[in-house]
Amino acid sequence: MTCDYIALATTGVQGLTPYVPGKPIDELERELGISNIIKLASNENPLGPSPKVLQALDQVKADLTRYPDGNGFRLKQALAAKLGVKADTITLGNGSNDVLDLIARAYLSAGDEAIFSQYAFAVYPISTQACGATAVVTPAKDWGHDLAAMASAITDKTKLIFIANPNNPTGTSFGRQEWERFISKVPEHVLVVLDEAYIEYVENDAVLNGVDYLNQYPNLIVTRTFSKAYGLAALRVGYGLSHPQVANVLNRVRQPFNVDSFALAAATAVLDDESYLQRSRDLNRQGLQQFEEGFRSLGLEYIPSAGNFITVHFEQQGTAVYQKLLLEGVITRPVANYGMANSLRISVGLPEENRRCLDALAKVLAQC
Amino acid sequence: MTCDYIALATTGVQGLTPYVPGKPIDELERELGISNIIKLASNENPLGPSPKVLQALDQVKADLTRYPDGNGFRLKQALAAKLGVKADTITLGNGSNDVLDLIARAYLSAGDEAIFSQYAFAVYPISTQACGATAVVTPAKDWGHDLAAMASAITDKTKLIFIANPNNPTGTSFGRQEWERFISKVPEHVLVVLDEAYIEYVENDAVLNGVDYLNQYPNLIVTRTFSKAYGLAALRVGYGLSHPQVANVLNRVRQPFNVDSFALAAATAVLDDESYLQRSRDLNRQGLQQFEEGFRSLGLEYIPSAGNFITVHFEQQGTAVYQKLLLEGVITRPVANYGMANSLRISVGLPEENRRCLDALAKVLAQC
Repeated sequence: MTCDYIALATTGVQGLTPYVPGKPIDELERELGISNIIKLASNENPLGPSPKVLQALDQVKADLTRYPDGNGFRLKQALAAKLGVKADTITLGNGSNDVLDLIARAYLSAGDEAIFSQYAFAVYPISTQACGATAVVTPAKDWGHDLAAMASAITDKTKLIFIANPNNPTGTSFGRQEWERFISKVPEHVLVVLDEAYIEYVENDAVLNGVDYLNQYPNLIVTRTFSKAYGLAALRVGYGLSHPQVANVLNRVRQPFNVDSFALAAATAVLDDESYLQRSRDLNRQGLQQFEEGFRSLGLEYIPSAGNFITVHFEQQGTAVYQKLLLEGVITRPVANYGMANSLRISVGLPEENRRCLDALAKVLAQC
Repeated sequence: MTCDYIALATTGVQGLTPYVPGKPIDELERELGISNIIKLASNENPLGPSPKVLQALDQVKADLTRYPDGNGFRLKQALAAKLGVKADTITLGNGSNDVLDLIARAYLSAGDEAIFSQYAFAVYPISTQACGATAVVTPAKDWGHDLAAMASAITDKTKLIFIANPNNPTGTSFGRQEWERFISKVPEHVLVVLDEAYIEYVENDAVLNGVDYLNQYPNLIVTRTFSKAYGLAALRVGYGLSHPQVANVLNRVRQPFNVDSFALAAATAVLDDESYLQRSRDLNRQGLQQFEEGFRSLGLEYIPSAGNFITVHFEQQGTAVYQKLLLEGVITRPVANYGMANSLRISVGLPEENRRCLDALAKVLAQC
């Protein structure tokens, strides 16, 4: 072979980090020679499946050999009714990751700029880079977004601003006042992507709901997911809400069957299960309290979180603590790739899982 | 609103056709006031689900709130074992549509050219256009690919050649000799995408199997799907096979959870169900014979097919026949958008569905 197939790729794609394959938990258990690993690494819902969803999945099995509804008719109807929006404002995605990627592909070319904050979700830089556009990263303020700095970073080349509220991996959130000051300053030709993957966990009334601003700001795109509070991470379904003209553009780029039949059925069913959402929230609130108390008693600093995870700081490298916790059978998430070398992000699990994690943490920190 | 959000999109995306939402069958039945519609429109497997798959889906339900294995470890192991390839040559996709799209995104920029044939699969022009690249369409020969013409169309700007074998929507296929003459002429820096979505239906020994050529041609990418003969259209899973360096590039662009847990489990299970594949093939062979005989007795010309569908010609517009068949409760696929105004593509169904379609066809043609 005389040809370099990496050098042949587009400039943007060449700049992407090569994919590093991971291993399923049971493979990891075999390798490490331990069993009963718990995973508090991916901000998953520890509650387990909604019974209404399981019922819906049983019904969709008969149609396994048929293509999904490419328009997601029923799910869009259900979302429209629940959120008080029109169906033509909705773009369905294979997780909100897909929607974020569609937005980047639709609006970013080489030479364009996309703004996001330090410590923001990893998909923003990846999708920006894949399109060959330039990432403009504004410094964080108290681990959260500095919306004023983000507004000031707008140039003639800015096409998109990615904002997460609450933010992953820091769990920070901002309120209506700060948001309104920001969004009113953004020119109409700059699209603002408000990523609300964790919004269902927010119980603070001061935190905004992006849907309330869609009518006033045609440049606003709100993205949401069924992977977190709704407990459907295995099935990959998320959505974008936007001006119909923006949704029209996103749906041009979207693959017609990007959301599968099981995902459509599950999402439609869980929207109808208010009690599942409430139990998810209750479990999460209790888990956050449990971790906060545990961290305080261990003398650890942490970032108060509005999400379903909490980021904690150490006086040593997070990856070192991560490795030791792994040997105790607890998987957490190092966030060195986010520029937070001395921290770990820990997802809220069941009370006994949180307990086990805190006990393991006490043990490994005592060793150091 | 003073801003035009379509004009703000990238040039390539602006050139894409706006998405036209369709309706689920039961919505259509309600609108038309008919019931018991049969759908022979999407080249779906009429056999219904594999029992092994249903079993696997039952097991995966417990992990509904957990993210999929982003590396598809088990499915890749199963594919590698079955096909005699290494796992690092595999790229998993949300259907082979996703893999085709990843290839275009990874290798096509504005100014690049992608070659494909007249009457070829609709995703090739869409993915090419979305990247802002130029489509070079070579004329078909007897409704099939003219591989010699495709080789002659290569210029300094050519990055990709999309080839389907068998081809959708015409059902044509080509053999090893013609293929070898073609692939040996293609420069190593031009990637050849051999789309084998329908390869499992091929029973003619002269037709090539792309896997046999991967070692010799590092510029070859073979794409396949579980949506057809394997009966998993609802779940969206396909794959690409290529040189590891190309797979490395494709996996950089791929979203980490593009294939969901249910799809991974189902695809792994069905690979182990040889009898399902055999029954799919048998049913398809019989159905193609049934349609060929039926068309002949109606005096209709058709294109002999190597796929799970057959394209038939009329002395009137295909859409007119389509509409009349619809009122008889039979959905078929007009192919005017493929430049075949007087034809319909009909998917092979169960024997009684094929019979109903042929009877309806006899009825509506007698009316004209």
